[in-house]
Amino acid sequence: MRTVDPVKHAAKRRQILRAAATCFAEKGLHGTRTADICARAGMSPGNVFHYFPSKHAIFIALIEQEGTDTDAYLAELAQAEDALAALFGLIDIVVGLAADPTYASLTLDTAAEAQRDEGVAALVAHNDRRLRAGIADLLRRAAAAGRIDNTLDPRGAATWVAAQIDALFARVATDPDFAPRDEAPMLRLLLTRFLSAKPA
Amino acid sequence: MRTVDPVKHAAKRRQILRAAATCFAEKGLHGTRTADICARAGMSPGNVFHYFPSKHAIFIALIEQEGTDTDAYLAELAQAEDALAALFGLIDIVVGLAADPTYASLTLDTAAEAQRDEGVAALVAHNDRRLRAGIADLLRRAAAAGRIDNTLDPRGAATWVAAQIDALFARVATDPDFAPRDEAPMLRLLLTRFLSAKPA
Repeated sequence: MRTVDPVKHAAKRRQILRAAATCFAEKGLHGTRTADICARAGMSPGNVFHYFPSKHAIFIALIEQEGTDTDAYLAELAQAEDALAALFGLIDIVVGLAADPTYASLTLDTAAEAQRDEGVAALVAHNDRRLRAGIADLLRRAAAAGRIDNTLDPRGAATWVAAQIDALFARVATDPDFAPRDEAPMLRLLLTRFLSAKPA
Repeated sequence: MRTVDPVKHAAKRRQILRAAATCFAEKGLHGTRTADICARAGMSPGNVFHYFPSKHAIFIALIEQEGTDTDAYLAELAQAEDALAALFGLIDIVVGLAADPTYASLTLDTAAEAQRDEGVAALVAHNDRRLRAGIADLLRRAAAAGRIDNTLDPRGAATWVAAQIDALFARVATDPDFAPRDEAPMLRLLLTRFLSAKPA
């Protein structure tokens, strides 16, 4: 009887997910065949199907992976001394992700797919709720420390901080001249003014 | 010989585009068959093909229509006395569009399609450039009238005003509880603070 080595199993799974992310970015979710993913991963279809029953399952696993990675990062940020600096650190990370064509393309495909696949929509909404809750916590702590306007509703403001993250990816998709790293100063100015100013 | 009545021709074209927009919103661009569009428009395939050679041509025409509508609206805004009020009027219109599921879904599909169809990408980028130029003009006039921070680069700031429009649609796609009209006050606050505050 064959035993499963959990470290090897996880590594193989990651290998398939990375290959799939690249294929989806190049050809889109619907334009990618499972055979493309197998070829890219350098694995046989039988081997890939041992880890994932279908292309759709691979796509779902990619979104789950994304949520797990974000959770781990938010847990780190929750320990940071300076909550406002932690928030801007998060924004810097996202600017880097938006500058990565594979990651940016997958993010847009996921948003489109969520429009017509309830399972994808539920998973995306779940990840997003956790992200917004993490951002709201940072805003609450920053307000308590007197770093931002304490009259702003943290949950309501967190929605519009998360919206800037969406906007980064949307701009990449729309404008071939949009360079996320070059835009970081203007985004930082926008967020600083939004969060810091006292209401008129 | 049959002569073409240009008014009737334009009306039929609009009828097909409306039917297609609804189908694309329900089933996505790739999930929609030309037969679905014909059925929805109440026209025979032969009749529809008289106006558009393919489903793809219908999709392209929808994006072109979008650009033409936006241009006409921006030309109106360029005549407005109060450029800042005109900008917020534009934002109000977009909030209404984001609250319309058919429009919102089509916008997201278009963004995803632009990732892998150069023709769609070029058209989307063209429409976006014109929108940003229109917003930059409003910002320039608002700054000259002393209504907003005149140290902000109008083109750079216009990018992030346009980004808020993208963000509205992305939020609709991501968060089932996101209600564009309820979010309008927070969006207005964000834009007011971003545009009005003097740099620190």
